[in-house]
Amino acid sequence: PALGALDRSQAKVLTIDTMNPTVKKVEYAVRGPIVQRAVELERELSQGVKKPFAEVIKANIGDAHAMGQQPITFFRQVLALCSYPELLNDSTFPEDAKSRARRILQSCGGNSLGSYSASQGIESVRQDVARYIERRDGGVPCAPDNIYLTTGASDGIVTMLKLLVCGEGATRTGVMISIPQYPLYSAALAELGAVQVNYYLNEEKCWSLDISELQRSVDEARTHCNPRALCIINPGNPTGQVQSRQCIEDVIRFAAKERLFLMADEVYQDNVYADGCQFHSFKKVLFEMGPEYSSTVELASFHSTSKCYMGECGFRGGYMEIINMDNEVKAQLTKLVSVRLCPPVPGQALMDLVVNPPQPGEPSYDNFIKERTATLSVLAEKAKLTEQVLNTVEGIRCNPVQGAMYSFPRISIPEKAVKEANGQQPDMFYCMRLLEETGICLVPGSGFGQKDGTYHFRMTILPPTDKLKILLDKVKEFHHKFTQKYS
Amino acid sequence: PALGALDRSQAKVLTIDTMNPTVKKVEYAVRGPIVQRAVELERELSQGVKKPFAEVIKANIGDAHAMGQQPITFFRQVLALCSYPELLNDSTFPEDAKSRARRILQSCGGNSLGSYSASQGIESVRQDVARYIERRDGGVPCAPDNIYLTTGASDGIVTMLKLLVCGEGATRTGVMISIPQYPLYSAALAELGAVQVNYYLNEEKCWSLDISELQRSVDEARTHCNPRALCIINPGNPTGQVQSRQCIEDVIRFAAKERLFLMADEVYQDNVYADGCQFHSFKKVLFEMGPEYSSTVELASFHSTSKCYMGECGFRGGYMEIINMDNEVKAQLTKLVSVRLCPPVPGQALMDLVVNPPQPGEPSYDNFIKERTATLSVLAEKAKLTEQVLNTVEGIRCNPVQGAMYSFPRISIPEKAVKEANGQQPDMFYCMRLLEETGICLVPGSGFGQKDGTYHFRMTILPPTDKLKILLDKVKEFHHKFTQKYS
Repeated sequence: PALGALDRSQAKVLTIDTMNPTVKKVEYAVRGPIVQRAVELERELSQGVKKPFAEVIKANIGDAHAMGQQPITFFRQVLALCSYPELLNDSTFPEDAKSRARRILQSCGGNSLGSYSASQGIESVRQDVARYIERRDGGVPCAPDNIYLTTGASDGIVTMLKLLVCGEGATRTGVMISIPQYPLYSAALAELGAVQVNYYLNEEKCWSLDISELQRSVDEARTHCNPRALCIINPGNPTGQVQSRQCIEDVIRFAAKERLFLMADEVYQDNVYADGCQFHSFKKVLFEMGPEYSSTVELASFHSTSKCYMGECGFRGGYMEIINMDNEVKAQLTKLVSVRLCPPVPGQALMDLVVNPPQPGEPSYDNFIKERTATLSVLAEKAKLTEQVLNTVEGIRCNPVQGAMYSFPRISIPEKAVKEANGQQPDMFYCMRLLEETGICLVPGSGFGQKDGTYHFRMTILPPTDKLKILLDKVKEFHHKFTQKYS
Repeated sequence: PALGALDRSQAKVLTIDTMNPTVKKVEYAVRGPIVQRAVELERELSQGVKKPFAEVIKANIGDAHAMGQQPITFFRQVLALCSYPELLNDSTFPEDAKSRARRILQSCGGNSLGSYSASQGIESVRQDVARYIERRDGGVPCAPDNIYLTTGASDGIVTMLKLLVCGEGATRTGVMISIPQYPLYSAALAELGAVQVNYYLNEEKCWSLDISELQRSVDEARTHCNPRALCIINPGNPTGQVQSRQCIEDVIRFAAKERLFLMADEVYQDNVYADGCQFHSFKKVLFEMGPEYSSTVELASFHSTSKCYMGECGFRGGYMEIINMDNEVKAQLTKLVSVRLCPPVPGQALMDLVVNPPQPGEPSYDNFIKERTATLSVLAEKAKLTEQVLNTVEGIRCNPVQGAMYSFPRISIPEKAVKEANGQQPDMFYCMRLLEETGICLVPGSGFGQKDGTYHFRMTILPPTDKLKILLDKVKEFHHKFTQKYS
């Protein structure tokens, strides 16, 4: 008992053995060990430690402003006006920025960004989102009541998954996600204790989605869980493909037939670069398929202020639209989001500007178009550059970056390197060597999922063109040396 | 099979019967049915529908700016400068605001609020938080590495609870919360499937905390779950009490003896009004108790930008400090928060200003002190006014509002009214009648928990003094009529 008392008083209440086991299963490679090491290396460099490189170049995360992308002037003017309304008397601010700021402030309690909004989001912002969706989708109606503003898209996705999870054992909810996937999905499913049901994108066909593979996946899943939702990321993260209209129609038919709740992650909807590719929203295609589908298929679609030409990740703005959701469930959703009070109001204001930007004839219109076009055309160039350079490297093969902000090339890793990795994922070993030798920070494909025996990395196309060229050259040189060393 | 097929195609995938059962158990009264009805009434009034009142007065939520409280000028100047750095060239902004803005922007990727921060929060902000805590606690050391910036305090609280939950059946994690409580706690515990373990505050002793009641509660809980954490709200929400130093010491001793992880919700740390009352942080008291406690007791403390003299709820800024957390658990915590990328960066910037406000000698100092003092003294007056007026009403008895922003008076509800409520909570019935007859929106005590057979409501002291007087008079008149009607 004496020793017992000692043990008892020394051990922590909360230890790795007594903490929530589902949290332990969570993994998130985009900010995993490679990135932690990159931060350490930056610190060492700043302390004067000698390295084989002069700077760390981070291409691990879709963080546009951190890579030098400039914010849209109009958006930031309105945010400044909303933050400090004294500026409404400042004649240097354009009138359209002031009128937007006034409208936003009038929708805020006490005319202040510092008030809580309704938990579903500011009503006028939801109205603007609904009108934006109607314009985007060629007039398909959208009700503001079906819009929920969120803390970035991640928040909406996790909330929807949370609603869907139930059952135990063989009836536990399964959620179908693409492989490769964005690891928010696997992390959320692990935390919720849902069953992750993988379907594989077809790398040989430019990461397209085959319905036969969806069928294989759901059939197999039915033997051990209850698949209830199908998640699609379009344009694709980490794979950069843009789905064809036909493919979306097929997916919707499949979801209807198999009775799956559709979740469409469409945060890269303005990031489409390749000739012949176009963004089609799931909502629009659904409604074009007629009432048999449009009045039955349950769909949640997600958007955000963090990507596209805005790249305003730090504001954590976003929205989701829900379609054909059962009314009782919707009431539960509204209740659930009320516990967290509201999404950040500056992010809601920013979301409003994204869906309601300067219009022709307004003083800020020309500059807005100029800035947006410049950002998107530079991204398109960098998408092409990335594909071209990587495909010149023997042992690297990469699909076109049709959209989004990432390339996910396949890399050959020699057998000897796989052994040397010594239990570590071989592409983790590869990326860690790359980081230590060149200062380039990428994320191993294993963090996103890939077919067994294949290896990839994800890199963003966001570094400024000159740095992106350096990065691509260094990857080329490194891959060559790495292959030689282990051959 | 024909009918079966029809059923199958008509039923939704996600229904109230097939959704996550833990979500259904969540309740959050602060934005519950009373508040929904208040919003409807406001709409009806604006449409010209006749009501027995001209306006709805909301005293249901601690939303200071919505009630007319003005933001601190300096904070908003810095936020405007950070949002639109062109303003750094504007000579009308004071130099100290500019230097704060520059420092914040230098800590942001690409010098932009639009970049993701580290998931734990911007490093320089965490350093400023640590220095603030050291000043507040008379020099007790604080490591920036123990600070996690959060999306409001709610986010930190839910994250900590999430880490703590494990086990099944009789070994399931129990979490001790005060009754009355702030319903974020019960909502989070319901969602996480943890066991809510109630301990009752002593209304007769000004809502103080008795250790004997903690003991009763934990002993009883041990018969059916594994109590592992003890949550304290100080100053109290909804009850407005301020804990004595002695009481905090006793709680810490109790937590050590019973091996409970301490969670201290200290978001009202600057809201202390009553003579003889003073805020003592759990951290400071813990360290004053010597290494036997300070090196062993696990503590998480929460703060936010939403309350005190700032009232900046919409920005969703906050932090938590963790003390004596196991290193492996801390690594898991860091991983967990990385999935959501980062707290909103404008909220982080605002948190930085709260912990590092203008200093003596800086150009904004005098005005900052003037604004802060004005806000806090008006709150102190309203705290007193609320207590005084309510205690003149026969059938209402209210403790002094020593701190925070709420009064939680006990109300007599006649037996006949209890019957008339017809299964509804009697204080819900009371508050709904109050709303319909007077336009005043309060939250029934049943939404926070109370001793069986007692009834209360929570009201904020935030309405402007003239409106608060109207509100109190109307409550007085209503209570009188209500009592007569049902006697």
